[in-house]
Amino acid sequence: MDQQVHFVTLATPDLDAARQFYTAGLGWTPLMDVPGEIIFFQVAPGVLLGLFDAESFRRDTGGSASGAPAGAHGMSLSHNVGSREEVALTIGRLVHAGGTVLKDPQDGEFGGIHHGLVADPNGIIWEIAHNPGWRVDQIGNVRLA
Amino acid sequence: MDQQVHFVTLATPDLDAARQFYTAGLGWTPLMDVPGEIIFFQVAPGVLLGLFDAESFRRDTGGSASGAPAGAHGMSLSHNVGSREEVALTIGRLVHAGGTVLKDPQDGEFGGIHHGLVADPNGIIWEIAHNPGWRVDQIGNVRLA
Repeated sequence: MDQQVHFVTLATPDLDAARQFYTAGLGWTPLMDVPGEIIFFQVAPGVLLGLFDAESFRRDTGGSASGAPAGAHGMSLSHNVGSREEVALTIGRLVHAGGTVLKDPQDGEFGGIHHGLVADPNGIIWEIAHNPGWRVDQIGNVRLA
Repeated sequence: MDQQVHFVTLATPDLDAARQFYTAGLGWTPLMDVPGEIIFFQVAPGVLLGLFDAESFRRDTGGSASGAPAGAHGMSLSHNVGSREEVALTIGRLVHAGGTVLKDPQDGEFGGIHHGLVADPNGIIWEIAHNPGWRVDQIGNVRLA
């Protein structure tokens, strides 16, 4: 099996709040939007993020309704920016769009990173980071210093 | 904020089982492996999948230990293959590597897809799909029919 992810799909209890946050709030463009079901955004070359109605997700994956939280837990998405200043600026934009700060911008434990955390309206955690040791070469290979 | 994900990070209760599954089992190559902490795999141009020790993830995101499940829940990763036959074949490989079938290969509800689901040793859900309406153009733009 190739070392490749094509879709990241997240259980989303409130799709309307998600649409508002990512499109009106952040200015993102959905590739496909099926109200009440799923919204797809392209988030990297060849990669889609799917925000999938939480009940449909539960049914589709055969998960039990009892006990498990409705949304996506134990996972985060990271977005890298070009400077420390941009970390605070981007977190400000996410908050303006309806996000909630989980961790104010601060230096990370290793790697020289500076980062903060914001939850979207469905509790999906976004890390906004400046990571001077991270770069992507011309053909898309990631390098970590 | 650009419409871009750079890292997908998953809380991983058993990093050693994850390493065994993805490297020995599937033949994947880590970009970085810090035993007891995190394993990074590049999974798309410019995108890393980070399997992060679940307790470190919890501490890093300020989550409470009580109630929340330790691993990643309410999310799945999808891997597309070129034919219906490859769906069954790939699922067989994941099972051979130590995965657990959650859904046998079958036709999906819409879009003409044929897919199945496998959980990795930490419960991370992989969808293996043949989706004839999905393609990626030369510059990495995804098209959905």
